[in-house]
Amino acid sequence: MKLNCDMGEAFGAWKMGLDDQIMPFVDQANIACGFHASDPLTMAKTVALAKQHNVTIGAHPAYPDLVGFGRRNMDIAPAELKALIQYQIGALKGICESQNAQVDYVKPHGALYNTMMADFSVLDTVMQAVSELDATLPLMVMAVPEAPEIKKMAKKYGLSVWFEAFSDRLYTDEGRLMPRKEPNAVHTSFDLIEKQVEQLCETGTLTTASGKQLAIHADTICVHGDGAHALDAVTRIRSLVDRLKLSKATKQL
Amino acid sequence: MKLNCDMGEAFGAWKMGLDDQIMPFVDQANIACGFHASDPLTMAKTVALAKQHNVTIGAHPAYPDLVGFGRRNMDIAPAELKALIQYQIGALKGICESQNAQVDYVKPHGALYNTMMADFSVLDTVMQAVSELDATLPLMVMAVPEAPEIKKMAKKYGLSVWFEAFSDRLYTDEGRLMPRKEPNAVHTSFDLIEKQVEQLCETGTLTTASGKQLAIHADTICVHGDGAHALDAVTRIRSLVDRLKLSKATKQL
Amino acid sequence: MKLNCDMGEAFGAWKMGLDDQIMPFVDQANIACGFHASDPLTMAKTVALAKQHNVTIGAHPAYPDLVGFGRRNMDIAPAELKALIQYQIGALKGICESQNAQVDYVKPHGALYNTMMADFSVLDTVMQAVSELDATLPLMVMAVPEAPEIKKMAKKYGLSVWFEAFSDRLYTDEGRLMPRKEPNAVHTSFDLIEKQVEQLCETGTLTTASGKQLAIHADTICVHGDGAHALDAVTRIRSLVDRLKLSKATKQL
Amino acid sequence: MKLNCDMGEAFGAWKMGLDDQIMPFVDQANIACGFHASDPLTMAKTVALAKQHNVTIGAHPAYPDLVGFGRRNMDIAPAELKALIQYQIGALKGICESQNAQVDYVKPHGALYNTMMADFSVLDTVMQAVSELDATLPLMVMAVPEAPEIKKMAKKYGLSVWFEAFSDRLYTDEGRLMPRKEPNAVHTSFDLIEKQVEQLCETGTLTTASGKQLAIHADTICVHGDGAHALDAVTRIRSLVDRLKLSKATKQL
Repeated sequence: MKLNCDMGEAFGAWKMGLDDQIMPFVDQANIACGFHASDPLTMAKTVALAKQHNVTIGAHPAYPDLVGFGRRNMDIAPAELKALIQYQIGALKGICESQNAQVDYVKPHGALYNTMMADFSVLDTVMQAVSELDATLPLMVMAVPEAPEIKKMAKKYGLSVWFEAFSDRLYTDEGRLMPRKEPNAVHTSFDLIEKQVEQLCETGTLTTASGKQLAIHADTICVHGDGAHALDAVTRIRSLVDRLKLSKATKQL
Repeated sequence: MKLNCDMGEAFGAWKMGLDDQIMPFVDQANIACGFHASDPLTMAKTVALAKQHNVTIGAHPAYPDLVGFGRRNMDIAPAELKALIQYQIGALKGICESQNAQVDYVKPHGALYNTMMADFSVLDTVMQAVSELDATLPLMVMAVPEAPEIKKMAKKYGLSVWFEAFSDRLYTDEGRLMPRKEPNAVHTSFDLIEKQVEQLCETGTLTTASGKQLAIHADTICVHGDGAHALDAVTRIRSLVDRLKLSKATKQL
Repeated sequence: MKLNCDMGEAFGAWKMGLDDQIMPFVDQANIACGFHASDPLTMAKTVALAKQHNVTIGAHPAYPDLVGFGRRNMDIAPAELKALIQYQIGALKGICESQNAQVDYVKPHGALYNTMMADFSVLDTVMQAVSELDATLPLMVMAVPEAPEIKKMAKKYGLSVWFEAFSDRLYTDEGRLMPRKEPNAVHTSFDLIEKQVEQLCETGTLTTASGKQLAIHADTICVHGDGAHALDAVTRIRSLVDRLKLSKATKQL
Repeated sequence: MKLNCDMGEAFGAWKMGLDDQIMPFVDQANIACGFHASDPLTMAKTVALAKQHNVTIGAHPAYPDLVGFGRRNMDIAPAELKALIQYQIGALKGICESQNAQVDYVKPHGALYNTMMADFSVLDTVMQAVSELDATLPLMVMAVPEAPEIKKMAKKYGLSVWFEAFSDRLYTDEGRLMPRKEPNAVHTSFDLIEKQVEQLCETGTLTTASGKQLAIHADTICVHGDGAHALDAVTRIRSLVDRLKLSKATKQL
């Protein structure tokens, strides 16, 4: 089980996130590519930071909506969506290759991520975009019950898929995130967060809002690099995941 | 002698240039990368057009000034300039590689081009930017009397340089373009344009405003893809250059 | 019956529309405010042109989507939508007042226009935005059968409404524009365009796609300032509308 | 003596400045207008906050350089500069008038401010821009020894001028700010800051880097709303200025 985190979301004079503090504790950095956040210099600094901590770099492309942080849905035609994903991945590759680093995967951001998970025709366009550019780049998507269908779609493009789960969000019975406006949608207790992570790692299941056990295979857990308790949460999850890994390794001896 | 032309300078709903008509007559397309002009979809279409006509693709990075078309000087610190050049080249590489095409060289645009030719410390930053990303990409710069110095700078970074001359601009004795506000700064007669091109190809010299013969080695001539007479001018220069090449080849038999 | 036309849709170095040629023939110029098109200098020039031809000036606010020309729907929360409408109207007012001109009405653009006509809660937000800024500014909306409902909404805010009809678009039985992808959605024959304008002026009705006569009260007709036949169409509609007005005036003598 | 502070410099999801905490202690809020910082919704919230604390509102126009925070010089032609200043002031007026507030003055930002103080032809363009829009809006400029010349320029346009001094910056003998890269350019000790403010208020002079006493008439002191000690500094300066005012009033009894 890996930990991934959105990184490099500063923009010009504006800061966001505790990248310096969080980077040492994660495995995968989803680096913004300038459309919802970041700028070339911020990207260069973030790539250097990821490299310093041996963190795998992912491109984090988004809708072209800086003021809305890529969180607002936009009706973008498939040909344009493909091109803007390829543009953003390419831009980060340009920054990475200039530092002898590399882009290792792609994780769409915000509204683009939500839309592709809700409408698989958009997911298909995203997959096509990535595969045309470089089919060896895995696509990180949400771990949902429809995983087999997603894998089948990806196979058509020769892509691999990495599934991510959320440590601090309540899930619906359909394996989707409970909307934030609903009560208890976000786990605020570390105990609950750790319980969810442990269950994901140990049993490959999640307990939904109704109490149902949902089988969810996750390759990576999304953690947050912003907010008052971000660093606490990340270090606890990091430590838990490492403990579980060690324990599993020990048992196998 | 090659012909290069700025291409892909449309933006969203706005058109610019006669790319479809001009592309068949040039050898090298300097494709805008979204900072002074173009957008991902326009870039994708322009790359497809270049590929269709076997035209070599160059990245045409610029200052981040869409409303000013990259023509206004901006005080940008070296680290940021490097990052934004790498970002733009990378973005075009992303679009190209998605179509099995490739970026073959880099030519800075507008104010960035003028500034680097006037201030070699900026040229140094541009060279560093390109070489860090991919030192096999030649940098296209203006053919000026200081060519030996420029080649020496490039050698430090393992870069090669392509020199370009202008067919329709009057030169000063220093081998710089006469500012547009001066009389006769731009050749409007095809005869004058053809005379300048022929002289460049045959003798490696230019006649300056004062009548001086200036030795200028050019690898490529910049032609324009926009304006009332663009197509006429390009086809005449193309035909002239091809005729001269054929004549030279014949003589060598 | 007035004629209104979108104007000032150039952006930086990019041109759009035949503003110089069209302006003399229209009554109302919907001037872009920098979010889907235009920039401060273009706005200043367009205001000067409108003033020179005694054309009434309308603010033409849009979603913040330059690359998409404001034609793509965006999920923007009401408080933000209000603010960005007030910002854009204010910006045009600033340009106008600097030339002793004034903004006389507001017509939303593109996707914002379509969305407010499809979802009256968005129309309500638009009305609130305009009325908070200046309730004496009429809001130009599409002339639809629900006009009474719209007037009632406007009255709540102390706003007046101007209804506009389209000369070159086929209407559905619901009084909406036939989507462009449908056959015959756009009238390409001048005869058909003139017939529709004459019917609107003389009888206050439209003939829909199914042949139904639809009562539509229009205060103004939208004409286009861009495209191959724009000038021809505008001068013919101008001449027709003037002829009908004269004929009506003569009859009343 | 008033206190002015840059406000409303958040942008979309990015925060900047302690507006909520600082606003109660200042007299004049220089509100960003969307070109170097801010967005319509942020402007609306900042206007509401200023209004709540009875703080006078100033428009804070800047070069169009969001990623550079308006701090980089840009070569912008006078006609365009005028238009973009009028656009920004108008936009803030639109937001203000929607809340029954008003723009009371104009203070250019960052590189535009520095450039107009270094090159009075740019200052002339700024004055023309403001006076064309509304000559009753005072222009806030730096209090420099050339104040009489500036007043004369302003008089030509019917403008009034408010002069501002800096509490925490060392001055050169020419009455300019010591560049930040020089030693002691910024006063970090509260004592030094208070001494400079007191001297400005009581004697209308500043002690320059060389120890020279420079006569500087200031109407307002610029305080900062961002950084670790911003709130401390502002409250101390506020309290000092109020104390001096009270003392002066008492003496006059």
